[in-house]
Amino acid sequence: MQKKTVRDYIRTIPDFPHEGIMFRDVSTLFADARGMRLCVDQLLAPFAGEKIDAVAGLEARGFILGGAVAHQLGTGFVPIRKKGKLPGPTYSQDYALEYGQATVEVHKDALPAGSRVLLVDDLLATGGTAQAGIALLERLGCDVIGCAFVVDLPELGGRALLDRMGMPVHALCEFEGM
Amino acid sequence: MQKKTVRDYIRTIPDFPHEGIMFRDVSTLFADARGMRLCVDQLLAPFAGEKIDAVAGLEARGFILGGAVAHQLGTGFVPIRKKGKLPGPTYSQDYALEYGQATVEVHKDALPAGSRVLLVDDLLATGGTAQAGIALLERLGCDVIGCAFVVDLPELGGRALLDRMGMPVHALCEFEGM
Repeated sequence: MQKKTVRDYIRTIPDFPHEGIMFRDVSTLFADARGMRLCVDQLLAPFAGEKIDAVAGLEARGFILGGAVAHQLGTGFVPIRKKGKLPGPTYSQDYALEYGQATVEVHKDALPAGSRVLLVDDLLATGGTAQAGIALLERLGCDVIGCAFVVDLPELGGRALLDRMGMPVHALCEFEGM
Repeated sequence: MQKKTVRDYIRTIPDFPHEGIMFRDVSTLFADARGMRLCVDQLLAPFAGEKIDAVAGLEARGFILGGAVAHQLGTGFVPIRKKGKLPGPTYSQDYALEYGQATVEVHKDALPAGSRVLLVDDLLATGGTAQAGIALLERLGCDVIGCAFVVDLPELGGRALLDRMGMPVHALCEFEGM
């Protein structure tokens, strides 16, 4: 009997948040004890032996993953949040959405300059949020040693974008389409 | 030399999100490797030896904590999210805010009935969100074995509310005022 892979735990919900989108739902992965553990272990495998000072995660599903990954590494966790959510002085970075734009923020004093940071999120689509997160961490003077995702949607170009930036990218599985 | 306590890692930012609020910022706790570890260990200490099947967390800071706590326990994690964020069929629960109301949701199939669940969040204030979260988990047929928070603001009455419900509550530290 084949054991379930990370991809097997993820369910697809058509037409969410709007028609034509196939939503890849990682909540079914995270809710399963074996799925969650497999996911964290596999996310970190390629970074074994690397010095990592902190984990950063993108709001909101990246927080679940980031908390678990930071705990496994024994590091702290830094949230990259939507505009207006962080209480202290922040750096802001805009990024493009399908229609319009959005802004993410990080506390200016979130990490000491020179910290080696792993950025995590559940999904890599266009890469816009990840790119904005990297820009914020670099503005703190951090060295982003890589980005780790559960799902990559390669057709949306995020992987190619991060590759062009020379950013090491690790994703546990791929899905076709949006 | 005294080592820092969980409370020592939390900073207070006055007048956020609006004038008169003393915002207790746990991001400085989570960003610190020792703070994060201390926090997870102390949150779980009173539940040692209890059977816990899953951890549930309240959006968004409860996701960071919940991911780490679930990882320490070796369980899965279930998100309780703001309205409209979960892609599958959900149960909804309204709760009162200072002005108006808000709604939280959980996937109807998030956990099997009978699951023993620990609910976590960073902050216990009026207890409205926690009470709504408990109601949702009970609607799934789960047994909420307790609620764990980093910060309790006892003057806001959340602790008293959960006590009246007979819910075991564990908080790592208290702050005065709002």
